[in-house]
Amino acid sequence: MNRIESVKNTKVKQWRKLHTKKEREATGTFLIEGFHLVEEALKRKEIIRELIVSEEVSLPSSWNVDDLTMTIVTTEVMKAISDTETPQGVAAICEELIPTNIDSWQKLLFVDALQDPGNLGTIIRTADAAGIDGVVLGKGTVDLYNPKVVRSSQGSIFHLAIKKANLQEMLHIYKEKGFPIYGTSLQNGVSYKEIKPSTSFVLIMGNEGSGVGQDLLAKTDQNLYIPIYGGAESLNVGIATGILLYHLRG
Amino acid sequence: MNRIESVKNTKVKQWRKLHTKKEREATGTFLIEGFHLVEEALKRKEIIRELIVSEEVSLPSSWNVDDLTMTIVTTEVMKAISDTETPQGVAAICEELIPTNIDSWQKLLFVDALQDPGNLGTIIRTADAAGIDGVVLGKGTVDLYNPKVVRSSQGSIFHLAIKKANLQEMLHIYKEKGFPIYGTSLQNGVSYKEIKPSTSFVLIMGNEGSGVGQDLLAKTDQNLYIPIYGGAESLNVGIATGILLYHLRG
Repeated sequence: MNRIESVKNTKVKQWRKLHTKKEREATGTFLIEGFHLVEEALKRKEIIRELIVSEEVSLPSSWNVDDLTMTIVTTEVMKAISDTETPQGVAAICEELIPTNIDSWQKLLFVDALQDPGNLGTIIRTADAAGIDGVVLGKGTVDLYNPKVVRSSQGSIFHLAIKKANLQEMLHIYKEKGFPIYGTSLQNGVSYKEIKPSTSFVLIMGNEGSGVGQDLLAKTDQNLYIPIYGGAESLNVGIATGILLYHLRG
Repeated sequence: MNRIESVKNTKVKQWRKLHTKKEREATGTFLIEGFHLVEEALKRKEIIRELIVSEEVSLPSSWNVDDLTMTIVTTEVMKAISDTETPQGVAAICEELIPTNIDSWQKLLFVDALQDPGNLGTIIRTADAAGIDGVVLGKGTVDLYNPKVVRSSQGSIFHLAIKKANLQEMLHIYKEKGFPIYGTSLQNGVSYKEIKPSTSFVLIMGNEGSGVGQDLLAKTDQNLYIPIYGGAESLNVGIATGILLYHLRG
């Protein structure tokens, strides 16, 4: 077991760099924190490169971590690598998650240029709950491994197959397969209530301000809206995703 | 028009105190910030006691504010009273919102001990979109006039009738009226999909961790759950509220 006491240690500097998207992409790794998230990651042990544990913390006896590389750090080091104000004392370096079962996806969620990390995390958690097979993140969408995305996904990033890809190309693939492709739009389109649930579909959710790009909306089978009955101008994009996914999956 | 240049001015000190629930309750007023929120509040002008505007800010010409008390402040004063890091330069002191149409409410949302201000704001925005007539906030729920609640409601606190009350008593009233009363529970109960939409109902949503209190669940007609099809442990309470309200209202 390794032990690190100085925040100036090279490894600590390396871990801290994982707060930036650039470093996450360069290394193909990301940092997670907290008991719940690390426990979820342990279910996919092969992606954990290293556990980082504060010296004052005891790991739950149910955790089977003997075969993992573990580094013990001081509270000060943990604080230095943490993105939260009150670190729980356990963290892990994980390898980027690569979905392997793409050909069998039946229910898909495409995310176009979504910007808020809390929204993306909640949407991933919701898609996981709704039994969606795969999420495809398009260009301009906040980085999946942003600490706030990971945190608000509440571990669902480890359950759900998620892929970064060109949405135009992906849309084309599923259109060829005959899946119904649903865009979402505040203007035009049909109420989601008119759509019958189905076993396979693609739903496209978009940016908080500007919605789904026109280039995508033009290629869908139908564009859906959620009726607004009161005085609100719109729904939060996470809420809208929940209503639509639970309706479409039936 | 008044003008305030010093952060030590008595009025500025008074405004700052409105960041605390205690002061909001003592004065029956709350502070809102930003163009969008103030614009929404202007639709219910009678509740605005005072507009506060930064000296460098021009109000939109569409705003009809000649009959309102207005105080011009320096950027420094605006920063001092603001809850945000980059104040937009416009704020208002509003009087507590008191719903007057309670007897005509048909579709109701009860909120039991919900703690996160962002969740409450989003839930109010969602209830507004879903055309709910009234929201009742029970004991232990985060204060409606918490700046984060107000912000994340995106103005819906000004559209929707919202009341703080004892949920047990309110439940009794609507039970007498013959409204179906639905609790929500992760365990037990029936899937929401088995419930038919109706023109009048009460839906009870609960605390993020512990859900709806047992005392309330015991008095409902039925307790509903949302099926979880994937690996997520639960849905975010705002997402769950959206799915249930849009289902129940039909």
